[in-house]
Amino acid sequence: MKVKNKKYTTIWLDKGNVKIIDQTKLPFEFKIVELKTTADFCVAIKEMKVRGAPLIGITAAFGFAKALMKNPKNFNLEKSYHRLLDTRPTAVNLRWALEEIKKKVIAYSPEYRGKLAIKLAKSMRQNDIKACKKIGLNGFEIIKKIYKKKKRSINILTHCNAGWLAAVDYGTALAPIFFAKKNNIPIHVWVDETRPRNQGALLTSWELKNEKIPHTVIVDNAGGYLMQSGKVDLCLVGSDRTTINGDVCNKIGTYLKAISAHENNIPFFVALPTSTIDTRLNNGSKIPIELRNGSELYETVIYKSKKITTGRIYPKNTKTLNPAFDVTPSRYITKLITENGVCKSNEKSIKKIIRLI
Amino acid sequence: MKVKNKKYTTIWLDKGNVKIIDQTKLPFEFKIVELKTTADFCVAIKEMKVRGAPLIGITAAFGFAKALMKNPKNFNLEKSYHRLLDTRPTAVNLRWALEEIKKKVIAYSPEYRGKLAIKLAKSMRQNDIKACKKIGLNGFEIIKKIYKKKKRSINILTHCNAGWLAAVDYGTALAPIFFAKKNNIPIHVWVDETRPRNQGALLTSWELKNEKIPHTVIVDNAGGYLMQSGKVDLCLVGSDRTTINGDVCNKIGTYLKAISAHENNIPFFVALPTSTIDTRLNNGSKIPIELRNGSELYETVIYKSKKITTGRIYPKNTKTLNPAFDVTPSRYITKLITENGVCKSNEKSIKKIIRLI
Repeated sequence: MKVKNKKYTTIWLDKGNVKIIDQTKLPFEFKIVELKTTADFCVAIKEMKVRGAPLIGITAAFGFAKALMKNPKNFNLEKSYHRLLDTRPTAVNLRWALEEIKKKVIAYSPEYRGKLAIKLAKSMRQNDIKACKKIGLNGFEIIKKIYKKKKRSINILTHCNAGWLAAVDYGTALAPIFFAKKNNIPIHVWVDETRPRNQGALLTSWELKNEKIPHTVIVDNAGGYLMQSGKVDLCLVGSDRTTINGDVCNKIGTYLKAISAHENNIPFFVALPTSTIDTRLNNGSKIPIELRNGSELYETVIYKSKKITTGRIYPKNTKTLNPAFDVTPSRYITKLITENGVCKSNEKSIKKIIRLI
Repeated sequence: MKVKNKKYTTIWLDKGNVKIIDQTKLPFEFKIVELKTTADFCVAIKEMKVRGAPLIGITAAFGFAKALMKNPKNFNLEKSYHRLLDTRPTAVNLRWALEEIKKKVIAYSPEYRGKLAIKLAKSMRQNDIKACKKIGLNGFEIIKKIYKKKKRSINILTHCNAGWLAAVDYGTALAPIFFAKKNNIPIHVWVDETRPRNQGALLTSWELKNEKIPHTVIVDNAGGYLMQSGKVDLCLVGSDRTTINGDVCNKIGTYLKAISAHENNIPFFVALPTSTIDTRLNNGSKIPIELRNGSELYETVIYKSKKITTGRIYPKNTKTLNPAFDVTPSRYITKLITENGVCKSNEKSIKKIIRLI
């Protein structure tokens, strides 16, 4: 997508070097950094310089490939695989990307592994772009249908950031919104601030501003009120892991919006590349929920005198708990929007869409 | 309640002067200020130096009385009544307190009005203390019952601040918790941060710390996850206005917690003095919802180098909407806890409890 009229993706190879946008600085600063060592890749994922299920998968793939370029032996293959895998527990794309590479390169003798891994990571990156574009087109059809019925600006509520910054390009939940805008369907987006890290207010709002899409940031508490007041036509969110029965694990707070949509008869859509589907788990209760540092609650990023710094918003001696994700049971989900098409959130439909049956 | 071993209430007369605790400085600074002019009272209510439905009622009562001490003529009576009434639209206590005084003093000739109004305000203050104490005792019985059944520490989730800082003393939703602590029932409180003004993280947490009650601050997004995980035994919140059918208007986000409690079969209690019951409205959809300034979202109070200042957390050119309250329909409410007893949240029970039938 475009930033100040120049096209960018979130991760790319520049003369063989892996470059990313440091998302912890957005929207105040647009900073590109290079990731060299496995440690660089791990820190970037852990500290959320890159985040979003699809993007952490692709970043891990490049990190793994870079590690194998340096040392392709079995010992280093296992070590770097586990170091990258252990960075974040919830999004399944991380494991998916690493396993895809591991199972392919392991059949080759070490000297071929590095180049093959780079080739695989590049192809995964391209496939992610293609998948997100298709998700955008498939989701766009849903928005178009609702617009044809309502014949007025369509109000979409989204939580966290599932835009192009969460993938390589286009994004998942925001992709249909970008295509709606391109096709002149009038839309307005309610952007959940998304505490504690404010990815909605910082990243989603920035993406929508860049694309000149009307939107309003609200606190996470406000979505229910807006739904009760008839000011939300549909909800559209991403997924960090989707189990085979259709349960969706996504940013903490997604569940509250889903049950509110359900209570108010508002359709609730989840947009996801099939790489976030975990075929090993038959329901969401088995997904490990990442507990992040409590400092994310009492300390916040602030922008003062043109500098990015941090500020204490409540006393440090306050006990906090910071679960990063929750699970929305499939019964609250209207449809899943994937690159292979739109389907119901149940086992049979999901197996069909990923061509297991 | 106690602050550093000294007993305080939120508003009191000191040699005839009205004193309050400036709650915008808590928990970082404990500052007592005097309110003199009607403008002082209006600013204190609008800018939330005092907040919480019961307390803004009592503050308005003292403001009205002080105005009548200075000028008790009909013109000033009407003017100060309206100035105080217009400070905040949602909590009904403001209107209730002002009307109680107005209808009584208006029957007297001007020279008697000021002193009578002060007497009435003082009596309202005393009655609020008594009511909150009774709410505490009535709610305590509920917690005791749950404890007797579960025989382990009871996890209570609360939203915003409905502690003694929201009333004159004891509080509403926190009063039963204080009595449970006094009676050695093991409890743990999940404190919703309560964006945008963080009254949970700042005020409720401070009150619980002062009383040595175990508690954990969470983002507003996390309550659903905790309820799904079996980590919440009951929810307990306050009310800014309760309509005659039992709908409860409270801090934005309360509704999301109520529907989540409902989905997870967790009892949801609302503690309120009967002064927050609006007998003129037969359902919550008619309650005016205050829209506050959007700067409350993008600018936040921060504490740096022992000073209270503000910090920008997202760009100023971000469009925001800031509704301060939402309405929880009565069907999601297990019981109302009032000074007159505990009752179901429906018209018949409410009319009984306020002795209308």
